[in-house]
Amino acid sequence: MRILITAGPTREPIDAVRYLSNRSSGKMGLALAQAASQAGHQVTLLLGPVGDVTLSAAISINRFESCEDLQKLLTEHWPSHDLLIMAAAVADYRPIVVQQGKISRDQALTLALEPTADLVKEAALNKQKNQHVVAFALEEPKVLLHRATQKMHRKGVDAIVANPLQTMDSTNISAIWITASGIQKNMQTMDKMDFARDLINLATAL
Amino acid sequence: MRILITAGPTREPIDAVRYLSNRSSGKMGLALAQAASQAGHQVTLLLGPVGDVTLSAAISINRFESCEDLQKLLTEHWPSHDLLIMAAAVADYRPIVVQQGKISRDQALTLALEPTADLVKEAALNKQKNQHVVAFALEEPKVLLHRATQKMHRKGVDAIVANPLQTMDSTNISAIWITASGIQKNMQTMDKMDFARDLINLATAL
Repeated sequence: MRILITAGPTREPIDAVRYLSNRSSGKMGLALAQAASQAGHQVTLLLGPVGDVTLSAAISINRFESCEDLQKLLTEHWPSHDLLIMAAAVADYRPIVVQQGKISRDQALTLALEPTADLVKEAALNKQKNQHVVAFALEEPKVLLHRATQKMHRKGVDAIVANPLQTMDSTNISAIWITASGIQKNMQTMDKMDFARDLINLATAL
Repeated sequence: MRILITAGPTREPIDAVRYLSNRSSGKMGLALAQAASQAGHQVTLLLGPVGDVTLSAAISINRFESCEDLQKLLTEHWPSHDLLIMAAAVADYRPIVVQQGKISRDQALTLALEPTADLVKEAALNKQKNQHVVAFALEEPKVLLHRATQKMHRKGVDAIVANPLQTMDSTNISAIWITASGIQKNMQTMDKMDFARDLINLATAL
């Protein structure tokens, strides 16, 4: 299969120096790309600002910074793939105005934000019969299952991986796999690489 | 000499997931720590969120995330050092209110920011006769010299390294070394490691 995976945070510029971002390390998406490649799939990785990475040479890598960059890459690459796994932590908000140069520190500052494009929803809307989309939901443990299921239906994706907030920056993971067809499977806390192999098996069977 | 070096960006939390930060890669501060250690100095590195790093085991490393974390580390470590090199890119602003949990993406959002503590100024105010502080100034090329000199005097530091904005995220550097005693020296574009060795020589001669 041709699998498209997004990984890492986005950075939404405030000025030439400052940005809004989130705590994604990109480790989950990188592990998924490795696992998918090792399982013999053709992998394209859209990767955010997470520093230098070492991956199998078989994986095709494109870098993004902002939500807008990632949107362009998805428009270009999604049509030629069978499965999209949206492991990237796309910023939900960005500054309405991006200042030229560097804002000086003298004055109090109020930052007006606007919602970014909903890339998961767009990809799901644009999918063909033979294409599938898997999304992620990161929520507080007590509302995790409820909000993740809502998100899956609202965005029109085929399955969602529900992660508790504690997963961020961690090398381990625990999650619930939920599909639009009604499957719900608890995935035990395990190493991200083991988890990635299990997830690739579930996602490619959709 | 006992040299205290700060490196990397700070992250100022918006909620449990999101933060404000800036484009510092930390490479300059890491190169300075290596160069100072190789020159035989005793080095303590205060390091921001820049991922995993490999440094000489002789360097003592403490990690920070926010400006407030770094402020605490400086209060603890500055009194026992001879020279402070503030290569960290400390955020000038932080959200006034840090939201518990994760803000949901439904509504428009306005983020009220407040200036963070001025750590460079505080360190300069607290220094003893035998202690010296070196700061950095990152500005647009056309206002670089003027603003950097102003900043040096305003913050009361002994010297400042004036970098054009283009230095960010780059492996090379060009800069002007300016001292409160009136020395001004153009440092040519060079590899960050070569630059670090020159800078350690200049700073330890203050």
